[in-house]
Amino acid sequence: GLALGLWRRQAALAAAREDEEEKELRQRFMAPPVSGLRELRRRRRELRSRMELLIMETQAEVCRALADLDPGASFAVDSWERKEGGGGISCVLQDGEVFEKAGVNVSVVSGLLSEEAARQMRSRGKSLKAKDGKLPFCAMGVSSVIHPKNPHVPTMHFNYRYFEIEEADGTKQWWFGGGTDLTPTYLNEEDAIHFHKTLKEACDKHDLKLYPKYKKWCDDYFYIKHRGERRGIGGIFFDDMDSPSKEEVFQFVKSCAKAVVPCYIPIVKKHCHDSFTPEEKQWQQLRRGRYVEFNLVYDRGTKFGLLTPGSRIESILMSLPLTARWEYMHNPPESSKEAEILEVLRNPKDWVH
Amino acid sequence: GLALGLWRRQAALAAAREDEEEKELRQRFMAPPVSGLRELRRRRRELRSRMELLIMETQAEVCRALADLDPGASFAVDSWERKEGGGGISCVLQDGEVFEKAGVNVSVVSGLLSEEAARQMRSRGKSLKAKDGKLPFCAMGVSSVIHPKNPHVPTMHFNYRYFEIEEADGTKQWWFGGGTDLTPTYLNEEDAIHFHKTLKEACDKHDLKLYPKYKKWCDDYFYIKHRGERRGIGGIFFDDMDSPSKEEVFQFVKSCAKAVVPCYIPIVKKHCHDSFTPEEKQWQQLRRGRYVEFNLVYDRGTKFGLLTPGSRIESILMSLPLTARWEYMHNPPESSKEAEILEVLRNPKDWVH
Repeated sequence: GLALGLWRRQAALAAAREDEEEKELRQRFMAPPVSGLRELRRRRRELRSRMELLIMETQAEVCRALADLDPGASFAVDSWERKEGGGGISCVLQDGEVFEKAGVNVSVVSGLLSEEAARQMRSRGKSLKAKDGKLPFCAMGVSSVIHPKNPHVPTMHFNYRYFEIEEADGTKQWWFGGGTDLTPTYLNEEDAIHFHKTLKEACDKHDLKLYPKYKKWCDDYFYIKHRGERRGIGGIFFDDMDSPSKEEVFQFVKSCAKAVVPCYIPIVKKHCHDSFTPEEKQWQQLRRGRYVEFNLVYDRGTKFGLLTPGSRIESILMSLPLTARWEYMHNPPESSKEAEILEVLRNPKDWVH
Repeated sequence: GLALGLWRRQAALAAAREDEEEKELRQRFMAPPVSGLRELRRRRRELRSRMELLIMETQAEVCRALADLDPGASFAVDSWERKEGGGGISCVLQDGEVFEKAGVNVSVVSGLLSEEAARQMRSRGKSLKAKDGKLPFCAMGVSSVIHPKNPHVPTMHFNYRYFEIEEADGTKQWWFGGGTDLTPTYLNEEDAIHFHKTLKEACDKHDLKLYPKYKKWCDDYFYIKHRGERRGIGGIFFDDMDSPSKEEVFQFVKSCAKAVVPCYIPIVKKHCHDSFTPEEKQWQQLRRGRYVEFNLVYDRGTKFGLLTPGSRIESILMSLPLTARWEYMHNPPESSKEAEILEVLRNPKDWVH
């Protein structure tokens, strides 16, 4: 009797504690996680669960930091499901005072890899041995593009993702990818240095070789070939990262994700009340056009999403600006502020050593 | 002495006549043709020359018809050369009263086919036997996109082109391609019928089978797969047309090119002074965004141009609107005028029988 009573009291206490934890987690996130809180807590030691919590936390952290700067506006939060397995949470703030369009998207997707996706991965050097032609996979990530209104506040993009594929013999291939990069309308060297320095510090905690390697990868990846320009002034970019160990790569990705707010938010705060001319706004709109060109013509993630059946188009194209402009033969005059940023987009610079 | 004097007088007369012809031709065109007037006159019986004259005439005809409707604006005319061979003439009217952006481009290009281009053509079923891996080609065409300001005036696109490739054994493969299609912001059935009827009449003069076949091809080609929508309400589209004979296909293409002004200009005249609301303008901007999506993600000509070394990017991307807009999750209310056009873009209609 006594022992049973004690057990009951302990069970009730445990349940109350769980409820408390759930309430707390719910407050920390923008929406309930795709995999469910109980499930994530149950598998709390697995890397998949820890990564899902990290991307959920990053989403909430970034959304809150942005909303604080744009008090009149608020994020629309959409949870969506994918009938083939998994789902996501899209948070979008549109037409605010500070931000023209800000989207932060989480997706946690699983199922069988499409033939096209497997082909693309093999072309990147992966040997994927399928069982009866089937490759079970799990992909999750947080991705975001922030387009501010003021032409003196740069656009920022980041994405951190984790991929797992089960091969025929039951072994799992896994890797991380991601990056954070900045696209200013006008060059501000101080901002460029702050942005790159913050990313470098996040990288340097793990390995001094990472920042130089991923900075260069970023300049190479965000190249608009038909224009001979990069999309922006870079940052870091990496893919297929699977060493030294799952734990160490996760810790590195965590450092990068935690660096998003400190590398970007101070720049927004500094410039969001700067005055600007209609000509500066127009130049911003032309640069937005180039952003669209990169994303629709070259970006691997966008192209992959558009070609994948069942993907959520509105979340993929959330990265496009609210407005953009294309003028025939627009060439800024020499030594103008417009020519200054073009020069850096054509010949990337090292911002920190 | 007498005979020589007579010969001299005749020669002087012939030269004067040639000068007169040249002056006349120069007045008829927007700029001197890529191949030169004398050369075109010398080879006047060759199909290449006749096609080059046709595309030059079409460019001038369309530019004049548009300029007449927008008296305050004028076409910027750029002649450009391609270092690998050939060149073009781009005519662009930007930010006029009636037209937001109107481009009419002629290009006459020759050289050796790139490996990538040959691969694409073979994948369309062409057997191209190269001599030492080299395939001399000649490609020429006129292409145009007209984006009006008023949301009640539709966007129009047309393109007519001719291709010749010389194979290893000296035989020449040739074909024509082209089409004319309409992209309204709002549906006007009367306009849709007028547009399709004019095109059908141009086709029917040659073969009654052509319009139904090319109308369907147009609906299939201008499909934005990730949206489940067509770019517009169609028109005609064809490629690889090489029968019944070179002469007959040329006459068909000529009829189509001559139909551009009558199928479109009356619609512009009818609506260019229609009043419109800011909401209607905004819907137009969202539709412009879809236009950009089609052109950058799917359009064969654009993709081919962006990937071809030495191509003139400004002339290729002339097709993009001056301004465009992307809103997250924009869904027009049921039974609205916006929903009406979406319905037709999702389920194409037959406008003439």
